[in-house]
Amino acid sequence: MKGKGESTRDNTDVDMEFRQESNFFYLTGIDEPGFHVIIHLQAERVYLITPDIPDNDIFWKGPNYNTKELLEKYDVDEIVNELELPRLITSLSPDMTHVLNQSQGIDLLKHAPMVLANSINTQLLLPAMNEARLIKFPWEIDIIRQVMYGSSQAHIALIQQFQLGMTETHLAALFRWTCALHQIYKQAYLPIVASGPRAATLHYTKNNQTVPSNIHTLVLVDAGGEKLCYASDITRTFPVQDARGELILAVLSELRPGILWSDMQQLAMRILCIELVRIGILRCEDEDQLEELILMNVPSAFYYHGLGHSVGLDVHDVGGRDLKPENQDEDDSVISEFLLNRPLEKNMVLTVEPGLYFNDEMLDIWTLYPGYEKWFDQNMLARYRIVGGVRIEDTVVITNNGYENLTKVPKQIHEIESLMNRAS
Amino acid sequence: MKGKGESTRDNTDVDMEFRQESNFFYLTGIDEPGFHVIIHLQAERVYLITPDIPDNDIFWKGPNYNTKELLEKYDVDEIVNELELPRLITSLSPDMTHVLNQSQGIDLLKHAPMVLANSINTQLLLPAMNEARLIKFPWEIDIIRQVMYGSSQAHIALIQQFQLGMTETHLAALFRWTCALHQIYKQAYLPIVASGPRAATLHYTKNNQTVPSNIHTLVLVDAGGEKLCYASDITRTFPVQDARGELILAVLSELRPGILWSDMQQLAMRILCIELVRIGILRCEDEDQLEELILMNVPSAFYYHGLGHSVGLDVHDVGGRDLKPENQDEDDSVISEFLLNRPLEKNMVLTVEPGLYFNDEMLDIWTLYPGYEKWFDQNMLARYRIVGGVRIEDTVVITNNGYENLTKVPKQIHEIESLMNRAS
Repeated sequence: MKGKGESTRDNTDVDMEFRQESNFFYLTGIDEPGFHVIIHLQAERVYLITPDIPDNDIFWKGPNYNTKELLEKYDVDEIVNELELPRLITSLSPDMTHVLNQSQGIDLLKHAPMVLANSINTQLLLPAMNEARLIKFPWEIDIIRQVMYGSSQAHIALIQQFQLGMTETHLAALFRWTCALHQIYKQAYLPIVASGPRAATLHYTKNNQTVPSNIHTLVLVDAGGEKLCYASDITRTFPVQDARGELILAVLSELRPGILWSDMQQLAMRILCIELVRIGILRCEDEDQLEELILMNVPSAFYYHGLGHSVGLDVHDVGGRDLKPENQDEDDSVISEFLLNRPLEKNMVLTVEPGLYFNDEMLDIWTLYPGYEKWFDQNMLARYRIVGGVRIEDTVVITNNGYENLTKVPKQIHEIESLMNRAS
Repeated sequence: MKGKGESTRDNTDVDMEFRQESNFFYLTGIDEPGFHVIIHLQAERVYLITPDIPDNDIFWKGPNYNTKELLEKYDVDEIVNELELPRLITSLSPDMTHVLNQSQGIDLLKHAPMVLANSINTQLLLPAMNEARLIKFPWEIDIIRQVMYGSSQAHIALIQQFQLGMTETHLAALFRWTCALHQIYKQAYLPIVASGPRAATLHYTKNNQTVPSNIHTLVLVDAGGEKLCYASDITRTFPVQDARGELILAVLSELRPGILWSDMQQLAMRILCIELVRIGILRCEDEDQLEELILMNVPSAFYYHGLGHSVGLDVHDVGGRDLKPENQDEDDSVISEFLLNRPLEKNMVLTVEPGLYFNDEMLDIWTLYPGYEKWFDQNMLARYRIVGGVRIEDTVVITNNGYENLTKVPKQIHEIESLMNRAS
């Protein structure tokens, strides 16, 4: 398997920040550019292939790798310079060579085309990696617990230090800095700091607006640090988080091995529907109409993403897209495919993230669709549209009998309020 | 010209931070993904081509572009959706179409192969862009002045808050945070925070070590923020900056329009040589031997990069590699090719960055080379090797009669010492 190389920006010499490809990191623990790894399965022997660094580069990039240090640090059996890669492949002469994908296959073929011509298999390694990565080892959970703790502290800092009139970018920078104070120096994904209507754009990362000085304004912060390539994922919305706090607790209380995620999604949709009826946004006279609203998927006008996803070396980790049959259309459902019909298992790490959004484009589609107008109270909707969006997201690990919540940020309304250091 | 698109990390859905390609930004001022620009030279008409955003994406990425807002914001004549690009090209039917490079040419051809087949020119646009970008407009200098000011404050913060035992990563994070407090939210390049021997690795960006608790330890910080895509570039070394401060002042005092950069490089090499002789590292009996040392390029054992480079939309901006004839070997000189034999001009922005490094690999090459041992005092060298490296780098703009120093960080030893908040 080939690890990631160095890259520069466009046609300049500006280095891009290096981040190892997740599968390569999972197998090797190496977060440096230019390595390959070859694992000889029968012989149970691991070869680490080091990049060949030209003499002139060592004054810019540092001294060449020391074989003894590499053997100890990465616990492999043999260190081989990449110039020796063709010779190594020839000496191994494999009957079958598993690579992650076609591009890695093509790349490997170049080193020893004659030997490898009929042995490359691109179908088996990736599913095996996905399966391995889905259920976490205890030491992986420990790292995620650490990065979740530091990221939780950063969320708490934002809630405490937030003032109307601050910019979204400032809050994002404060998040990064507080992470750094907890020895977390990278982000698992671009922080989303969305105030007002922008909170209804799920992956809003421009963060370039000033938080409106309006007492109804909400700020949605979806951000999490990365440590040793492991992600964290947390969302909070403040000053008010509304009833999302109750909804997440209702889902969390159900989590344990054996539960189907699709049942959790239905549970969340039902609770959301009851609540939208209660506050008068959706019109519903009786139990039968409630069932019809749910059957017609009407609550998804306000909640148009999945209830959660796996977290690991990637923030949207394995267990989602990779389980989906290849012939399935990408856009046929707004509900995520997380786990499909596979039950939860111990040591899966996943998010629970109910949301409620007032997105003008989405609401126009639903409320103007013939036959659907009757479900919506337009006057109530008009009052809520300025809210933008609310989302609460915790990351948890499934245990023997339930779950452990790795998120250490309060989510109840009174807890958030007591954290906020405001004069209002 | 095609602007940069969005990108994700490896085969995941993790968005990479967007940064516009510098030439596209120079022409359009657009720092958002997925745009093209077409400039009709004869008609003096500018067409901005917007990305076509699929309906389903607007809930994740935000609403589609508003034509009126784009026309005002970017001061162009017409907004065209990218689906209409083939029709626009056909209606323009250009005799000659200038593109930045072959890859942009191939990409453009796809939209209207018949119309463009014989009109694509890949040779003229890039040199014209380089020439335009080399001499800065006053408004460009203003932006660079702002980002230099904020980055200077971040350097001052590091010098003031530095403590032995801090990690390099912590200092890098503190640099980013102080920039953010001055409304600078991006870095022009990966910050280099190198303590001890690592300071002799020019582009050391791992920043993963603890600053040794040794009173001889130096910390080299080479970092600068980016604002509106414009770079800054500053290096300081502390607690002690040695005589580099004098050397940089000697060079700066010569700067004015008409001066040859190659003369500045020779001046710096001569001053460095005299100093290395004075402190006893290089052996030299008289004036003739001094000239021989310089002629043989011996000081470059301690100073193996160019004296400076242009700064603009890229930190190593135009005026360097792009002026070099294509058939010249990359590695034939350790001296940079900045400006070759072209004199300095008013409104060029450039760095002056003398250095002094004790790099074991480099010193081994020079001191063991037959006939060269006699120049080096090995005992003195052994004493200095632990120092690592020292570099001071200012960014200046050439004015009518001299230069304006955009760098607002002290560089004299006593100034650095008085900034440092240490108990020693």
